[in-house]
Amino acid sequence: MSEILIYIDYLGTLVFAISGVLIGVEKKFDLFGVLILGFVTAIGGGTIRDLLIGVRPVSWMENENYLYLIFIAIPIVYFFKNTIVKWRKSVFIFDTIGIGLFTILGVQKTLSVGLSPVIAVLMGVVSAVFGGVLRDVLANEIPLIFRKEIYAFACLIGAISFVISDYFLWHNLSIFISISVVIIVRLLAIRLKWELPFNVRSPK
Amino acid sequence: MSEILIYIDYLGTLVFAISGVLIGVEKKFDLFGVLILGFVTAIGGGTIRDLLIGVRPVSWMENENYLYLIFIAIPIVYFFKNTIVKWRKSVFIFDTIGIGLFTILGVQKTLSVGLSPVIAVLMGVVSAVFGGVLRDVLANEIPLIFRKEIYAFACLIGAISFVISDYFLWHNLSIFISISVVIIVRLLAIRLKWELPFNVRSPK
Amino acid sequence: MSEILIYIDYLGTLVFAISGVLIGVEKKFDLFGVLILGFVTAIGGGTIRDLLIGVRPVSWMENENYLYLIFIAIPIVYFFKNTIVKWRKSVFIFDTIGIGLFTILGVQKTLSVGLSPVIAVLMGVVSAVFGGVLRDVLANEIPLIFRKEIYAFACLIGAISFVISDYFLWHNLSIFISISVVIIVRLLAIRLKWELPFNVRSPK
Repeated sequence: MSEILIYIDYLGTLVFAISGVLIGVEKKFDLFGVLILGFVTAIGGGTIRDLLIGVRPVSWMENENYLYLIFIAIPIVYFFKNTIVKWRKSVFIFDTIGIGLFTILGVQKTLSVGLSPVIAVLMGVVSAVFGGVLRDVLANEIPLIFRKEIYAFACLIGAISFVISDYFLWHNLSIFISISVVIIVRLLAIRLKWELPFNVRSPK
Repeated sequence: MSEILIYIDYLGTLVFAISGVLIGVEKKFDLFGVLILGFVTAIGGGTIRDLLIGVRPVSWMENENYLYLIFIAIPIVYFFKNTIVKWRKSVFIFDTIGIGLFTILGVQKTLSVGLSPVIAVLMGVVSAVFGGVLRDVLANEIPLIFRKEIYAFACLIGAISFVISDYFLWHNLSIFISISVVIIVRLLAIRLKWELPFNVRSPK
Repeated sequence: MSEILIYIDYLGTLVFAISGVLIGVEKKFDLFGVLILGFVTAIGGGTIRDLLIGVRPVSWMENENYLYLIFIAIPIVYFFKNTIVKWRKSVFIFDTIGIGLFTILGVQKTLSVGLSPVIAVLMGVVSAVFGGVLRDVLANEIPLIFRKEIYAFACLIGAISFVISDYFLWHNLSIFISISVVIIVRLLAIRLKWELPFNVRSPK
């Protein structure tokens, strides 16, 4: 990974960790619970991906920076909670960049162990989405993503566009394009109040 | 796997996926949630088995047909929901065949990586049962199977009979016998209103 | 592992299984549910650790004694439930020894596959704690450990003291010291009514 991608990855990890910590605090978990929730949110998606595609040990074990970023999330929430909540909209953009990158890293990694592009797209979405699913399961909530499309659809489109564009274009360019796609789809989704385009409901 | 077993396996996957999708629709999940629930129900048991016994990547990654079957479950539920609910009893027989096959495939696979028959029986049950457990956890329900024995016991008996009969008999015959055992035990269980034979309750 | 450690490990497994079975019985699960809950509580932590650090198959598959211990937990609870509940305080000490040992075995195992001490400490805590987390998720409860620190902090201190003392001291001595640390911290925590030392709450 080039320097800049690493830093975006770190940023995404931190933003995810903060989102987990915030929910733990809201639910009045103790420090340990808050920490686990931050952890699971930040690295859960990549961990499930690594387990499924057979990478071992899971990747965050070989770079402790991920752990430290998650620890840092706790004092950040402690001191800046109100600011974070107030600036939610600005955080949102970093969040989306992080999500886009997580998706694309997931696709790349899956392709790199020799699996098919269809599986890679699926694992890209899993990487970006399942941290949040685990967080909600542990907090004993129905996963948010099941009820209200937030970013899964954007990840899906981004993952597909990466698989296609990386085939034709310069690698870093296709990363840039695909992350942009994730951001644009997500912004559009919010602006146009897309619910998922087709709600599954039986015809009467 | 011989041709016919593959088709039974596909059928089982589809039936499991439909059961997951139905629950997602009942809970008013959006398309994405419904899809994940279908997925997890259909391939969750085999995935947990593969992770535990150390097969990697998990097996459905090497045959995309499983994915397509799960996608197909969505339009099937969309268009035929009422029919499915009405025909529940007929679906039931396919369901049980699928369960029986999942059990036996799980036993075989576990034996094939050199683990013991006891572990193999256990993993057979896990293959057949844990998709439903994951489905219920994600839907924020207490797993159905914990409350009301539906097929776990049938799987257990089927798995044991497969381990024994495969030792003495022609392979395909023992598969046929074991699936029959699963079906018979399950039908008996329902007909005779077996709750699990011994309810755990301390003597007064 | 030396003889005595194996027996402590077995004892810890049994105590954990009993705790899972007890909760299953309280929740009126049927036999199968009770069994799964016993299982998951007893071997869940070690299983997650093995999956994450890449040991395969997971370790309990190569020693069926663990399975039998879990099966034994069921008649034990059936016949001695009231006694167990009454003697809870005495059970507690075995429980804590088991936890301490689980922690240290987790640390050792993680170091033995070449991962760093920081990861090893983390995996030590995971080994001891995540069985209970899985148990609570399956029973559709918010994991107890998120709300009320019970032993996670003790495990953390024990894991750290093991990593340090094992570097300087005779192996078995450092095991003894570290388990003692877990017990002492836990007893102190209860006696002094420690909640976790710093509750995460934003300053007003």
